[in-house]
Amino acid sequence: MTGNFMKSFLAVTVSTLILGSTIPAYAADKNDAVSENRAAQGDITKFGGARRLATEQTDIMKAALHNGQAKNVILFIGDGMGDSEITVARNYAEGAAGFFKGIDALPITGQYTHYALDKKTQKPDYVTDSAASATAWSSGVKTYNGALGIDVFGNDHETLIEIAKRNGKATGNVTTSEIQDATPAAQFAHVSARKCYGPEETSEKCAANALENGGRGSISEQLLITRADVTLGGGAKSFKQEAKAGDYKGKTLEQQAIERGYNIVRDANALNNVTVANQDKPVLGLFHDGNMAVAWEGPKAVHYGNINNAPLECKPNSKLDPNAPTLAQMTKKAIDLLEVNPNGFFLQVESASIDKQDHKANPCGQIGETVALDEAVQVGLDFAKQHGDTLVIVTADHSHSSQIIPEGTKSTGLTQALITKDGSVMVVNYGNSEEDDSQEHTGAQLRVAAYGPHAANVMGLTDQTDLFFTMRDAMGLKQ
Amino acid sequence: MTGNFMKSFLAVTVSTLILGSTIPAYAADKNDAVSENRAAQGDITKFGGARRLATEQTDIMKAALHNGQAKNVILFIGDGMGDSEITVARNYAEGAAGFFKGIDALPITGQYTHYALDKKTQKPDYVTDSAASATAWSSGVKTYNGALGIDVFGNDHETLIEIAKRNGKATGNVTTSEIQDATPAAQFAHVSARKCYGPEETSEKCAANALENGGRGSISEQLLITRADVTLGGGAKSFKQEAKAGDYKGKTLEQQAIERGYNIVRDANALNNVTVANQDKPVLGLFHDGNMAVAWEGPKAVHYGNINNAPLECKPNSKLDPNAPTLAQMTKKAIDLLEVNPNGFFLQVESASIDKQDHKANPCGQIGETVALDEAVQVGLDFAKQHGDTLVIVTADHSHSSQIIPEGTKSTGLTQALITKDGSVMVVNYGNSEEDDSQEHTGAQLRVAAYGPHAANVMGLTDQTDLFFTMRDAMGLKQ
Repeated sequence: MTGNFMKSFLAVTVSTLILGSTIPAYAADKNDAVSENRAAQGDITKFGGARRLATEQTDIMKAALHNGQAKNVILFIGDGMGDSEITVARNYAEGAAGFFKGIDALPITGQYTHYALDKKTQKPDYVTDSAASATAWSSGVKTYNGALGIDVFGNDHETLIEIAKRNGKATGNVTTSEIQDATPAAQFAHVSARKCYGPEETSEKCAANALENGGRGSISEQLLITRADVTLGGGAKSFKQEAKAGDYKGKTLEQQAIERGYNIVRDANALNNVTVANQDKPVLGLFHDGNMAVAWEGPKAVHYGNINNAPLECKPNSKLDPNAPTLAQMTKKAIDLLEVNPNGFFLQVESASIDKQDHKANPCGQIGETVALDEAVQVGLDFAKQHGDTLVIVTADHSHSSQIIPEGTKSTGLTQALITKDGSVMVVNYGNSEEDDSQEHTGAQLRVAAYGPHAANVMGLTDQTDLFFTMRDAMGLKQ
Repeated sequence: MTGNFMKSFLAVTVSTLILGSTIPAYAADKNDAVSENRAAQGDITKFGGARRLATEQTDIMKAALHNGQAKNVILFIGDGMGDSEITVARNYAEGAAGFFKGIDALPITGQYTHYALDKKTQKPDYVTDSAASATAWSSGVKTYNGALGIDVFGNDHETLIEIAKRNGKATGNVTTSEIQDATPAAQFAHVSARKCYGPEETSEKCAANALENGGRGSISEQLLITRADVTLGGGAKSFKQEAKAGDYKGKTLEQQAIERGYNIVRDANALNNVTVANQDKPVLGLFHDGNMAVAWEGPKAVHYGNINNAPLECKPNSKLDPNAPTLAQMTKKAIDLLEVNPNGFFLQVESASIDKQDHKANPCGQIGETVALDEAVQVGLDFAKQHGDTLVIVTADHSHSSQIIPEGTKSTGLTQALITKDGSVMVVNYGNSEEDDSQEHTGAQLRVAAYGPHAANVMGLTDQTDLFFTMRDAMGLKQ
């Protein structure tokens, strides 16, 4: 990481780390300060110095638990962000004794299971993909890997965005991936295979879903029909395809979007200028043909990378599009546009490329996308603190391959040593696949964290499908 | 796993899994039932069927949070039991939609960091060993890997067992490893290197700690001096060594123990017959020369083990000593003996070989030891439910190497496929070290779970050192 970049991204965190006594700017009251100030309280080499808790927190936690109706729900997903990925990123960006002011600040936490089902046997499949897992919290039902918005029998199930819309709420869907990718798509699409982005792929891979066969259409077409008020991400490419049937047959999906009244924006400046997003004029932000660029870069892990190569610092991505909005900017804008709805809103925000960089065994890529999520969560928490009727959830869809291992370890896998904010060396290992670019998802239960009304429902052991009901019922949605 | 063995260990769990509506026997009231009945509520292929929560749990969780003084604290440690290890064991033994009636039943959960410090730089070391981590919760201070009961400057710090004793409480220390191993030893010893079990090793590796040099003595000698009321585990071998200085110079540590008034027991029957354990007659159970045998066995993972070898079921360990007590039996007996103290007790219970079997890339070994911990936790929860003034904690000292990966994956690491209770195949991967028998600890933050007074202090993000203060202050101990 260059000195300046390091300085700029650390500047906001350092003040809250020193002595652990500075109250974050968004802390509205003492309870917030105590539950969120999670850095070490003192000199970590001394007795009690590494403590994060400033005081006994029974009364604070009781006060944090309430079940009034949530006007709004903001769900943050770190794709592939297991406890290992969180710790890798925290160690690097905040130090081992530091904390993420977004991700780590949610006071109420638990663990959830996220198994998928085997399509044939209908028994548990212990390693889910992003499609089955997103379907679980979007629709409350388990399904097979690759499926979106349907169960193992092929039946469609209503999604939270669909239900929230029907109940008069504003809805938003934000991601750094293609907007057709599994996590965002599970909120608006019902298809048998996640790759059915446009009419072309759908005819081939999800024939029964194709419009020309009487189905609900490709993922992109279902996006336009579901009509969230705000949809932001990458994935412009699929909108160049033409519809094969229906009212818009022969027209591109982009033309269809315009005719349906969508306001299509292509860069941060255009997004910034948007002043309204509703059912008359929904906003569709398409900031990349494919996935949006990652925030940070650095070398991929290699065999004996920690033994043969010097430890290094991450750098800002030199290929980052300066005109594209950040995840935090997209989150802020989405909230600003949605909050005008008097009935409240449901917003899903995904940092998609934690997973993709984990697959590629790229620790800097993975860390940068986790930091990007943290910055977005801070925006969401800020809003929730100011309003009090907003449930914020931070979790992941599945765990992943990266592990922090001892410095001199000779691993069978791919490794890279990094110099962290602490000035210590951290070795990250990827050792579950021979394919350099396809390190695998893992099945470990995940952290799920919450702030606001109904947060108690993430405590203890729950399942990914519980999250659907927690969010639906927190908002009092009729289904 | 053989049919009979499978039947016997599943018999107690099946009744609570079907329909998720049966209340565990120890559930004292409705709150307990809801917070603990964490199996799927229905048909996992159906909408809502995989939910674990039977009802909105805000009021239940608020009721579970209270901060009256804890008369007793029982701390359960799964050595190396990260979220991945918990999930591996649950999937195998209970099914993906099932739950552990001990480990998973604690309603209040959070995550903690567990970094150690580098001895020279005093900066974070991102992968702790069991010595530094156990020192963190036993004494409230971070230290370097290998150190017990001292800080990075070499200063001794009082342990919870020492403090509890001084405050008039009964104390106990139970493990399946050698009783001198790092996790139990951190509660009674202050040495610069964890391997200083007896006077011989101490002269050589921890000279400053040796009695003949004016130190506090070897780990085994400090065990006898600290004098917990109940100490149970393996590690008889070191007691055959002779003291090199002091009142017992030239005598074996076993002879010293007898002269100090210890009641030494060697098997389950003798333990069963013990009726009293106090400062006049402390109990020292030594059930093995080294580490106690593990409960289950099965093949070690090998390269392409999931590709080349058929999936299989685990078996009970054919080398298990039928005369040795189980971890659950030791836990039950320790509680029975300690609870007569009117001032209450502090008890630490460790399932040590989750870690050791993880190091060896042996999934069945690792799972069996996690199940053994679960059975012990059930005993502790039973007691706490009947009393109400007991804080129960379940956590781990560090995370470990095992990962659940997709069925057909070709891994660079060592794999083994198992047939789970679900009848599905689960592949466990170990891929962070070239050494077959030394897969490495990992740095991912850990689950920490609690039941009882002051349980709120494990919520959100804490540090391993916070747990020391949580337990000390829950009991109102003066330090």
